[in-house]
Amino acid sequence: MQKPQIKHTEWLWGVHAVREAWKNPDRKIHSLLVTEKSSGVVDEWSIDKNIKRPKGDIIERSVIQKRLPQGAVHQGLAVQCSPLEETFLSDIIIQSKSKDGILVVILDQVTDPHNVGAIMRSACAFGASAIIVQSRHAPESTGTLAKSACGATEHIPMIREVNLSRAIDSLKDNYFSVIGLDELGEDISEIKKIQNSKICLVMGAEGPGLRQKVKEHCTSLLRLPTGGPVPTLNVSNAAAVALYALK
Amino acid sequence: MQKPQIKHTEWLWGVHAVREAWKNPDRKIHSLLVTEKSSGVVDEWSIDKNIKRPKGDIIERSVIQKRLPQGAVHQGLAVQCSPLEETFLSDIIIQSKSKDGILVVILDQVTDPHNVGAIMRSACAFGASAIIVQSRHAPESTGTLAKSACGATEHIPMIREVNLSRAIDSLKDNYFSVIGLDELGEDISEIKKIQNSKICLVMGAEGPGLRQKVKEHCTSLLRLPTGGPVPTLNVSNAAAVALYALK
Repeated sequence: MQKPQIKHTEWLWGVHAVREAWKNPDRKIHSLLVTEKSSGVVDEWSIDKNIKRPKGDIIERSVIQKRLPQGAVHQGLAVQCSPLEETFLSDIIIQSKSKDGILVVILDQVTDPHNVGAIMRSACAFGASAIIVQSRHAPESTGTLAKSACGATEHIPMIREVNLSRAIDSLKDNYFSVIGLDELGEDISEIKKIQNSKICLVMGAEGPGLRQKVKEHCTSLLRLPTGGPVPTLNVSNAAAVALYALK
Repeated sequence: MQKPQIKHTEWLWGVHAVREAWKNPDRKIHSLLVTEKSSGVVDEWSIDKNIKRPKGDIIERSVIQKRLPQGAVHQGLAVQCSPLEETFLSDIIIQSKSKDGILVVILDQVTDPHNVGAIMRSACAFGASAIIVQSRHAPESTGTLAKSACGATEHIPMIREVNLSRAIDSLKDNYFSVIGLDELGEDISEIKKIQNSKICLVMGAEGPGLRQKVKEHCTSLLRLPTGGPVPTLNVSNAAAVALYALK
């Protein structure tokens, strides 16, 4: 007898994350939990008439809280939905062939969902096409990540790769310049911007930075022009600055 | 009878925040709580021999946790210390007269200690001289702020002003260009950097942005070149990019 297929679902919460999922035609939403106070917000979201959305269950804040991880700041809104379809590195490479200028970001062992969420938000705002992470060190907690990303997770895919060095090589084979952010690199503010280029920015975790092997696979290393007694930035702040500098 | 003077103390925690306080000659430290595992870290901090520091109490992680706010990520280290001496706007204005190029940041109702901490860290790394906040909306929780700032709070002062518009006027009277970050401003990436200039960057809270009155007092308004379906950045990310762009 064939086993019934278990469909994995995920919870998203917070006004921006829920709104972007709600308006995303590629997102299947199974249920909406909303407080009376927040229900008016949902009615204001104009969505395409072909998108099917469930009627919301109006419930108490505390009941929503119980369905979500401890400490989730849900602002009176949560949805249970199917995960988005996976995007692959090959999709981005195909995209890059017909696109003038493309930017992707590789995160080497950056796993805190608040940081990864903020990076996805900045990457989306600066027009990047994807975030690439290592499958074994992918950030957990989709909900926290989507909340920190302010819903940008609906617009920029997260690609999971088994081996980041191999992913870098594939990008280089396809004419990407792969720039690792590293304190021993050249000052990023002094490089000339190349119009219509294909760029991959590689960021390591705070503290350890890029792993040696990943570093060796980069085309070049650049550093942010910081200094003083505390010369490093929070990783999402560093990513935002680098994305701006390379844009 | 005169009342005994109650001396206010504050707790700081986390490796970086404690280390920077420990090494800061202007910081009076009353007690150190440390786990056995983290005690070796403290021994490695070289400090000036004139700085007096207490011997650490080696205790269990859980005991440290009990002394700190819920959820404080202390990494096995916490100190109880006196607050740093206050810095005033007039100090910065005096400093600006003998300094080529000075950068200060005004936060208009940005109060989340994680964000303010990350902004202080970036401001310190990009060489800013002070953060100015409104006394009535100053961020709470010194410990959380110092932890997020990675100890930068020991190196860059937070100035509390009753009226931010008046503070802006004082800075303008002293030849500062006061730049408000606002979506209706000019693209920050297209402005020419002015060498040796006196700059004040003004940031509003996410969502409401700068208050109208504060905006009207700025010399000019600039925006970050972001776009797409989620065009805004987290406030600390936005601050980092603006600091880099104005540096």
